[in-house]
Amino acid sequence: MPSEGVDAARDGSDLHHSLRTVWWEEDAQLAAVCMLDQSLLPQQVVVLHLTHEQQVADAITTLQVRGAPAIGVTAAFGMLLALHRFLHERASDDEPPSASASQTHLISVGHLLRSTRPTAVNLAWAVERMLRCADKTLAEQANPLSLWHELRREALAIAAEDVDASLKMGQYGAELIPAGATLLTHCNAGSLATSAGLGTALAPIYVAHQAGKAIHVFVDETRPVLQGARLTAWELQQAGVPLTLITDSMAGHFMRQGKIAAVFVGADRIAANGDVANKIGTYGLAVLAHAHSLPFYVVAPCSTIDLSLASGDFIPIEQRNSAEVTTIRGVQIAPSGIQVANPAFDVTPHSLITAIITEQGIVYAPYDVSLGHLCGRL
Amino acid sequence: MPSEGVDAARDGSDLHHSLRTVWWEEDAQLAAVCMLDQSLLPQQVVVLHLTHEQQVADAITTLQVRGAPAIGVTAAFGMLLALHRFLHERASDDEPPSASASQTHLISVGHLLRSTRPTAVNLAWAVERMLRCADKTLAEQANPLSLWHELRREALAIAAEDVDASLKMGQYGAELIPAGATLLTHCNAGSLATSAGLGTALAPIYVAHQAGKAIHVFVDETRPVLQGARLTAWELQQAGVPLTLITDSMAGHFMRQGKIAAVFVGADRIAANGDVANKIGTYGLAVLAHAHSLPFYVVAPCSTIDLSLASGDFIPIEQRNSAEVTTIRGVQIAPSGIQVANPAFDVTPHSLITAIITEQGIVYAPYDVSLGHLCGRL
Repeated sequence: MPSEGVDAARDGSDLHHSLRTVWWEEDAQLAAVCMLDQSLLPQQVVVLHLTHEQQVADAITTLQVRGAPAIGVTAAFGMLLALHRFLHERASDDEPPSASASQTHLISVGHLLRSTRPTAVNLAWAVERMLRCADKTLAEQANPLSLWHELRREALAIAAEDVDASLKMGQYGAELIPAGATLLTHCNAGSLATSAGLGTALAPIYVAHQAGKAIHVFVDETRPVLQGARLTAWELQQAGVPLTLITDSMAGHFMRQGKIAAVFVGADRIAANGDVANKIGTYGLAVLAHAHSLPFYVVAPCSTIDLSLASGDFIPIEQRNSAEVTTIRGVQIAPSGIQVANPAFDVTPHSLITAIITEQGIVYAPYDVSLGHLCGRL
Repeated sequence: MPSEGVDAARDGSDLHHSLRTVWWEEDAQLAAVCMLDQSLLPQQVVVLHLTHEQQVADAITTLQVRGAPAIGVTAAFGMLLALHRFLHERASDDEPPSASASQTHLISVGHLLRSTRPTAVNLAWAVERMLRCADKTLAEQANPLSLWHELRREALAIAAEDVDASLKMGQYGAELIPAGATLLTHCNAGSLATSAGLGTALAPIYVAHQAGKAIHVFVDETRPVLQGARLTAWELQQAGVPLTLITDSMAGHFMRQGKIAAVFVGADRIAANGDVANKIGTYGLAVLAHAHSLPFYVVAPCSTIDLSLASGDFIPIEQRNSAEVTTIRGVQIAPSGIQVANPAFDVTPHSLITAIITEQGIVYAPYDVSLGHLCGRL
């Protein structure tokens, strides 16, 4: 159940609080994973209705949906969509699909969805949660209808928990924000990075803003894909949070001028020792924050924590297409034929992180201990 | 006279060694300041022939020519062009222009040119050098023809010295580059940032490359104006120097991975204590280099040193149009109506600078002493 705080926050007329990034639609005939096409924002607001799991995988790969928690929810809905299609298309066959055939199909779709993006662990986490739910259901009642009902319940629960977690992260994190502060954020870790609600790194900012703390946000544009300029600037503007857009290279300058009080970022994967993989550029900001004695906060749900990896050295870093660097919205900005590097993420060592804010509370160094306790509690 | 070394370097068939950024053309009828239009590179190679000083001022303002040494030479040629026009247009008047009227005109054109960009001191330095030359000439022979000859000689000397200085900086700086090193550079401080020749930060790289040191250059794209992606990548490619283009936010990641051995940047103004104003993002790179114990080298001719300013705190920082951030080559990339910051430069404190490489030699901390000695020698 959402708390009173959630209702209050979502009752507002601000668009971002009613903003849905990815959701499930279903009627007697059709089921669909629906999403805002984030590759077109902010110039066009287009809703996609995806009716095949391959479309869902493609939407994740091409960044039509992005943000670690949002792609986790998308993967859960993608699994549900695949099951719906599987059961629906075979309903008129002489022999309707068996529970075990359905499970085999789900495992294969899980592979498809997990292969889309390697760094954000929420994707694998959501797929595994759906598969565990299928295992558990089929161990009790080996029929496809039960499987459908249970997986539907699980996917919707994942989405609801995502929204709830964002509010809790917001409430915990807002306590770290002094009134009148100017904060820096990188990439988009806002409403658009979660399935709905307040986001991760932006959640404390939204809660502080709604509490009347008169905050201001410096938004890194976040090359190459410009999630800051296109998505964070847009959703903060919609929510009425004062912002200043800067290029990634300006952060150090404004820190040196004393204009920034703290940095808030999201995460794509957090290793057992507290090392954090997040959008490329995060590490550089952490070094700059450290050099200026500024707090550097990572905000992420517990689904982002991967205790199976001892340190960030083991987190796979996705290398994306060079065209993301050499072209911007289709316009060529560099000579043809040159070599380009395009790692989508970097790793920030735990020593540079002031605190990690989760929906279960705020944890501090030593992270190997505090993250272990946190996950032990779950 | 160019040295033998300069001739050898410019005799190469590599385009960049015959690349001219800005030059003077003159025949019986017409005089013009000519330049490659750097705002169109690398997609279009267009040469501008400017015949009015206002066009020269506009070309500097709109970044058709940029780079501290190059705009210094451009300003010298702009002064010469203004005098040519002044003398030529009034040649048929009943009363031809007096020497003192010519001088008054030059002072006014100097104001125009100096007002185009406030940070790079080379602009003011070149204007003042032309005005001092005018003063000196008129103190000896108060006639416009002598003034013309002397100013023409002075402007061409400024351009020739610029080329010569770039080779000397290259030779000094190359000694700091180990064989097989991968270097990082920011913005464009290459041939395109000087009137011709090897540039500033790229000069040691070109000399090391020609010496067969098998170096590789990481090129920051340098938002917002993309001088790295558009200009540095292009001229290194033309010269056959292996390069990898990255976004500004990736530098820290590659330093942490041990991929970068040193950073080479140019400068727009160097204060008496060694603080350096250079393209926005330079400061962040200096902090990152320091955090990774990498040498951070500034390469600039002595005309960039401004002993009249005690520290970088007094260097004026140009604030440019927000459209440079919110649009890329005319394509909108951010929501309309948001606040944007666009400082074109930042200041790197001398404590983060390993050495300053000039055409007079390499200087080290304490810079207040070493820069004083260097300028005392001139």
